[in-house]
Amino acid sequence: MAPREKERIGFIGLGIMGRPMALNLISAGYPLWVYARRRASLAPLLEAGAVACPSPKSLASEVDVVITIVSDTPDVEQVILGPDGVVAGAQPQSLVIDMSTISPVATRRIAAALGEHDIEMLDAPVSGGEQGAIDAALSIMVGGNVHAFERAQAIFATLGKRVVHIGDHGSGQIAKSCNQLVIAQTLTAVGEAFLLAKRNGADPAKVREVLLGGLAASRVLEVHGQRALRGDFHPGFKASLHSKDLRIVLESASASGLALPATALAAQYMSALVAEGHGDLDSAALVSVLEKLSGTVLRDD
Amino acid sequence: MAPREKERIGFIGLGIMGRPMALNLISAGYPLWVYARRRASLAPLLEAGAVACPSPKSLASEVDVVITIVSDTPDVEQVILGPDGVVAGAQPQSLVIDMSTISPVATRRIAAALGEHDIEMLDAPVSGGEQGAIDAALSIMVGGNVHAFERAQAIFATLGKRVVHIGDHGSGQIAKSCNQLVIAQTLTAVGEAFLLAKRNGADPAKVREVLLGGLAASRVLEVHGQRALRGDFHPGFKASLHSKDLRIVLESASASGLALPATALAAQYMSALVAEGHGDLDSAALVSVLEKLSGTVLRDD
Repeated sequence: MAPREKERIGFIGLGIMGRPMALNLISAGYPLWVYARRRASLAPLLEAGAVACPSPKSLASEVDVVITIVSDTPDVEQVILGPDGVVAGAQPQSLVIDMSTISPVATRRIAAALGEHDIEMLDAPVSGGEQGAIDAALSIMVGGNVHAFERAQAIFATLGKRVVHIGDHGSGQIAKSCNQLVIAQTLTAVGEAFLLAKRNGADPAKVREVLLGGLAASRVLEVHGQRALRGDFHPGFKASLHSKDLRIVLESASASGLALPATALAAQYMSALVAEGHGDLDSAALVSVLEKLSGTVLRDD
Repeated sequence: MAPREKERIGFIGLGIMGRPMALNLISAGYPLWVYARRRASLAPLLEAGAVACPSPKSLASEVDVVITIVSDTPDVEQVILGPDGVVAGAQPQSLVIDMSTISPVATRRIAAALGEHDIEMLDAPVSGGEQGAIDAALSIMVGGNVHAFERAQAIFATLGKRVVHIGDHGSGQIAKSCNQLVIAQTLTAVGEAFLLAKRNGADPAKVREVLLGGLAASRVLEVHGQRALRGDFHPGFKASLHSKDLRIVLESASASGLALPATALAAQYMSALVAEGHGDLDSAALVSVLEKLSGTVLRDD
């Protein structure tokens, strides 16, 4: 049997995460059609051989699989279900993989709407940050039916290292909510730790170094802790998006009758960061809210 | 020049952490004198060749270096400064290394009292848990003067992998406070994440698996997360001790004019766990407090 031809992929959303992911698909030999609202985002993809489309609808008519990775629930609803959306162009049997981070409830609704047109959907949000996207080392958390998951395996393997089928539609988004709340709380924890050290004459950089060798070790302490100590908040992952994700977390918690007090506290800090006009900074800048509240500055310069 | 003889070490405190640490010192060829309040703790050490002493004082009179690793501030004060304590037996120029987790303020006081007898002190609390102690893979955070730190380097290398001199007397304890607050908050974060998953029909074990591949990854998610999902709370590190450590954290914060709201919340959960009579469980059992508050059980069995 001849090796199966690579599926034609349409890619919508070429931001910090989407751009390197789309480039990895091209490098792996996938024929790629792209759509982005900001035309400037297209340039590096077109240079690499992708074909630009004027709308999600026209893109969907060219391909077998559509990948979306855009900012928020309304964006996903518009590019998939809007009048010029994917659903208006896609053939039956095609597959939509939404890698955005959005509401699990909206995900189930979108999956149902696509199902009426015999279009399968997976929610497949990611973790690993810009570097993980560049290195094709993302963690991918997948919700949807097993058959669709298996169909998408080769694509996921091109984008990430750890790919887990969590369960039904929306459960990838639930896993992503878990991811985002853990990161927000770990950011808060690391910030409080650095402040305690600084305030008591211990060097936060040395504290970070020794903690990385023990049970307090985390990727956040390593990556975001370094950013906090350097005061380098070039994103990375924007605080405004993390804040949006935490709203989704707390909505899901509330809708399922669950109180998450520690998440709520961290979400308030992230919200304060955005309210201060710093939504475009990396979410590691949460530490600056803690610095302000405590009247303590971590860096001496 | 002939290789310098190994210093004679006295070891006080043979609990979950102290016992394997003392055994590692014997394995490395250190002549070891031991003292423990509970005589039953001594047996494995005596079998390995250690010499039992009837008091900290008599122990100190036999050795060059005394290591203490006991439960709380009053215990350290008693074994070092009490009437039958180390200070009553130790020679000038000897070194006391306290590896317990206690108040940084008390540490500075004890160091000053020993200094009056020309006895040097290091605070050198550890992280890494029982397994880290067994594997000689502890993280060791050291406060005290550089000369004493250098003298103790060979001993630390026998007990741990990552050894960092943080700064002056007490700063090892400050680093340990940072460690304990980060772990407590990460325990809370992982617990809230698992509950959100469970409540929304996503398998917490799969969520743990996928999160370990991304930026939410931590040693707590790996080690304590596994304990939480198995319901295996055999210590490890007792909740009562973690609760005591968090009291020290909050005292240090308060004494230095710092509010740590997220730490305070996690400390309340740990305190509730102990108040429910579960202080002897591993501190990963904090998740059971969150389960109770939310009326949600993580395990189906």
